[in-house]
This record gives sequence, structure tokens and C-alpha cells, in this order.
Amino acid sequence: MQAGGRGPLIALDAMGGDHAPGEIVAGAVQAVRERGVRVVLVGRPYELHRALAEHDAVAEVPIVRADEALTMDEGALATLRRPRSSIAVACHLVRRGDAAAIVSAGSTAGVVATGRLRLRGQPGIVRPAIAVVLPTRPKPTVLLDAGATADAKPEMLVQFAHLGVAYGEAGLGMRDPRVGLLTIGAEAEKGNKLAKRAHELLSNAAGLDFAGNVEGHDLLTGKVDVVVTDGFTGNVALKTIEGSVRYAFGQLREAIEESRLARLGGMLQRSRLRELSGRLDPESQGGAVLLGLNGTVVIAHGSSRARGIAGACELAARLASQGIVSRIGERTASTPKPHRLW
Amino acid sequence: MQAGGRGPLIALDAMGGDHAPGEIVAGAVQAVRERGVRVVLVGRPYELHRALAEHDAVAEVPIVRADEALTMDEGALATLRRPRSSIAVACHLVRRGDAAAIVSAGSTAGVVATGRLRLRGQPGIVRPAIAVVLPTRPKPTVLLDAGATADAKPEMLVQFAHLGVAYGEAGLGMRDPRVGLLTIGAEAEKGNKLAKRAHELLSNAAGLDFAGNVEGHDLLTGKVDVVVTDGFTGNVALKTIEGSVRYAFGQLREAIEESRLARLGGMLQRSRLRELSGRLDPESQGGAVLLGLNGTVVIAHGSSRARGIAGACELAARLASQGIVSRIGERTASTPKPHRLW
Repeated sequence: MQAGGRGPLIALDAMGGDHAPGEIVAGAVQAVRERGVRVVLVGRPYELHRALAEHDAVAEVPIVRADEALTMDEGALATLRRPRSSIAVACHLVRRGDAAAIVSAGSTAGVVATGRLRLRGQPGIVRPAIAVVLPTRPKPTVLLDAGATADAKPEMLVQFAHLGVAYGEAGLGMRDPRVGLLTIGAEAEKGNKLAKRAHELLSNAAGLDFAGNVEGHDLLTGKVDVVVTDGFTGNVALKTIEGSVRYAFGQLREAIEESRLARLGGMLQRSRLRELSGRLDPESQGGAVLLGLNGTVVIAHGSSRARGIAGACELAARLASQGIVSRIGERTASTPKPHRLW
Repeated sequence: MQAGGRGPLIALDAMGGDHAPGEIVAGAVQAVRERGVRVVLVGRPYELHRALAEHDAVAEVPIVRADEALTMDEGALATLRRPRSSIAVACHLVRRGDAAAIVSAGSTAGVVATGRLRLRGQPGIVRPAIAVVLPTRPKPTVLLDAGATADAKPEMLVQFAHLGVAYGEAGLGMRDPRVGLLTIGAEAEKGNKLAKRAHELLSNAAGLDFAGNVEGHDLLTGKVDVVVTDGFTGNVALKTIEGSVRYAFGQLREAIEESRLARLGGMLQRSRLRELSGRLDPESQGGAVLLGLNGTVVIAHGSSRARGIAGACELAARLASQGIVSRIGERTASTPKPHRLW
């Protein structure tokens, strides 16, 4: 098994996710056949072989053995107890140069902890960040950190900005992305201590197009291309978006059902609403991306089915072929190092 | 002018808000005539007298003179420059016992700074918090702090819980409200340092029904009655809810307009959607409430019209007649004081 040939090889954690390994294997087959992505499955060989046989795909998708797996409800500490988990072995393949990037639908805490331990941080990056794509139109917006680093320092937010810009360029084809800082007012002095200091640092950062502060109600307006915040605030904001959109649609459905226009409402729902909720579906975005380590991990939603896994593999392949890790290295090598951290 | 008589007297900052003083005065007249609230207007007498005359209400609403006003774009520091601003004079009326509570549609930063300076914190409360009511159904949910204290300590979050419970009971008729902590996972150890320590303190707090952690997607599900968080996270979450609901409705409108069902969609919008967006309108909730000071301030939305102001006056009168300040005093007097703060 070699990483050469027709494009990057993606190491797919076959044991992570609510529907592992069945839907993960089905997603691998879809990625290989329909999207031209090269995939290696990491997990228990017997199960994976049998699942591949159901798709007549034994010859198309190689398997690398990993006898253990992190369960979905295991937290960060489990990674220490299971050095041969499927996600740990996937990381090992990337460290050895045999695979170019990783996809996992395992628990976010477990994936982040394993990634930090096995891949280690890129030179110059103190903490990793999780980037997610918000469904703004016409252009998407990258939000990070969505939960990898709950207690961030101001200097880390500047690094997150570089991670987000590199992701926007390599993964989403953005050109000269504009960066905003998530805080609680438009003026520079609005925010908590972290945000106020980060504003100063971002204002003076080389190589970033810093557009100033953004607020919660700006997140879905496409005001900037990349929004940076700490992992606590970003995770709350992301889940609040998901909950609010679900709430608004639920209220709408209720209003429609209560009204005499119920049947027409049903037609509406079947037509455009389905497309709309599809766009807001995290699976359609390919997944969240863990950035800042020596190797990229696309974290697919835990409930991902085959289509979501295939999309995540495609995203991972695109990021790898665009050289996102070295892009990040170039961006952060050219910026002065913050004194307090080195 | 006396605070006795038929119910509490509300000091209304007539100079704060985008539509001051015209809509503020109209709201005062509405509060007096339609809702039976006693109101005193605080501001420039000549302007207020003239505006009252337009409603034939000169004899119904007293005026207290304040020659200065904080503008909507002035921040916290302006309160020091303007000791005789309308909001400062309103605070003075409460301190002197002439009025029972305050309503202002002025800038939140200015109102919070003036309130902290002129009313001072209640004994045992280190920092104030802003409580807002989220439009969950069938019961509302109180979220605090929505922005008064951006850098909170864990001990303050416990106090915020008491403020929120007192508000839920006195303002919304809640019985034994359940308290949740906003963080990034259901388990006790999920969160940043602040949230993890606050979880410990809340778990051991007397007089609180602590239901554990809630996440962003729980905010609108009515899972708990009171959600506590620091003012930074709370403000981001609140504005994210507003932006996401607006986004979902906008996307829906677009989907309807693009579809062949456009006219039917228009009918739908006119009927139930209007009611729904009305419920999500901050004005219909009466306003945010600044708690923890020696006097309650209802902060109406800056864009409030007469109806919103009248609702805010009604809320302020209800909170005053339910004795919210002394309820808070009783709750926090019975709890042990955190060592680090006294």
C-alpha cells in the first residue's frame, strides 16, 4: 500500500460512528467508485472484509488492521487506554507517510485527543482548532474553533485565523478570505479580556485581512469569510445555530399544521424545504476539520451514513491534494512568534 | 410625587432609545391608560410636556427633570461624564425610594454602567447580570447573563442562578425553576475552566434545583427554566439565536418566492408566520432585565416603539410589586458566601 498513484490516500476510521462499520464501509465504496477518492479502511479486518464483500468491493478498498476502537461515549482519556484504536492507527499511517489525511465519524473528544497525541501539533501551532462551514449564501463562512481548545489564549486565536484562512483557500476555494473576531459588540473594546486582546493582536497580524469584530447575529450573514473564537464560545455558537434553525423550522411546521393551509404547507415542505434543510445538514458539508496538527482529520458527524462519509473522504482528499498542512506551515512560519508562547 | 398609592411607580428614562422621546412618551401614556401602571417620565421637561400634550396626558404622567441624556452610541464611560443624565436621575429616584423600578431603552452599555455606579450592587451580589426570556414553548426559559459581566468568575455564575430563579418566580410565575449551566457537553467535566468550576459550585449550592449542563441546541427546547452563563457567552448565544431565526425565516421566504407556490406562501406568511415572528420579537417579551443592583432596571430594545415601552413598564411594575430585590436578598443571604470574594 503506497500513498503515491492517483491522488492522496485517505485513512478512514472504519470503527468510529453510530453506524460503524456498515455505513462507513458503504461510504468508502461510494467515495472510491463515485468520487474517485483512494481510501484505506482501518479497523477489524474480518468485519471489514465481510462488509466489503457485500459491495463486491474487496479488491477496491484495502484494509489496515486495528483491533480496538473508541466507543462513541468514551471521552478524551480513552485514547491513552487504547493505543491501537482504529483512529490511533489511522494517525500512525499519516505520521509514516502512508496516508495523506484521516476521516473519522468517532466521538469528537476522542478524535481530538488521539490526534493531539499521535499527530502532534504542527511547528508553530500551540493548539489545534476545529473548523466548520456555516451555510451562509452565496459564499460559505468558516467558523473556528468549534470545540478543540475550550480555554484559548489570545495568541491562539491569531493562529486559528491562519488555520481558517488556509482551510478557506484549500478546501473552499476562497480568495483572500476576510477574517472576523466573534465578540459582543462592533467596537474594538467590546468583549471579554480574551476577545479584547485578540482584537489587538489580529489588528497587527501580518498576512491576515482582519475585518474587525462580528457578533452572534452576523454569523449567518456572510459578513466575513472566516470567524475566529475560542473553542468554548465557538461550540456554543455552532450548537445554538443548529438548535435555532431546528426550532424555527419546527415552529413553522407547527404553524402550518395548525392552519387551514396544512395541505399546501405539506407541498411546500416537500419541495423547497427539503432542499433547505439538506443544505443545513452537517453531513452535506463533509464534516468538521481538525486543523493545526501534522496531518488533517475530517471529523464526520457521528450519525453519518454512507453519503456523509463519502463527502468527508472527498473533502479530506481535496485538503490533502491542496497541501493544507504545508500551507499552514508557510503562513505561520512567516508571522512573528508570540513571545509568551515560545 | 410619592411611591405610595396604587402599585409601584416606574421611573421611565424618556431620553433613551432610537425613538426618544416621542415613542417613549406614547408608551408611558399607553402603560398608564391601558395597563394601569404608574409612570414618571425622566428627561427634558419642555419636550416631554409638549409630547404629553399631544396625547392630552399632561395631568396623567408626572415629569422629573433631567437635562442631559446618554446617546445610543455612547459607551459605558459616558455615564461618568454625565451625572445628570436621564438614566442617572431615574436611578436616583429609586435610591431615594421615590420610584420602585426603572425602564430605559437607552444603550445597554450605558444603562449597565450607570446602574452599577448609581444603584450599586445588592449586598452579597458581586456583579449584576442581564436576564432575557427565550421564546420556548409551552414555558419560557430565562437566560442570563446576556451581557452585563463579560468576564465572570465561577462564584458569580452561582449568584446569577439565584438572580434568574428570583426573576423566573417574580416575573414569570415559575414554580421551583430548574437551573442549567450552558456549556459544551452533557458531562460534568465538559467545558472551559469557568464552566467546569461553576458546575462543581452549582452542584453543591443550597437553594437551587441544579439540573446539570445544557448545550447550545438545548436553549430553545425548554429543557430547563433558567440557563446561566457568563455575559460574553450569553450575549453571543442570544444574538446567535436572533440571527439564526432571522436566517431560517429569510431562507424560507426565499424558498417560497422561488417556488411556484409563491402566492400560497404569501398567504401563509400573512397568517401564522406573522404571529410566530411576533413571538420571537424582543419587544413582545417586555425587555431584558438588569438584576443584582439595589433596584431593577428593565432595558427595553433600543428600537422600541410605544407598545414595547408599555410592556417594559408593565414588567417593571410586576417585578417591583413582587419584591424582586428583596427576594434576591433573601435567596443570597441564606447561601454561604464564597471565600475568595469577601
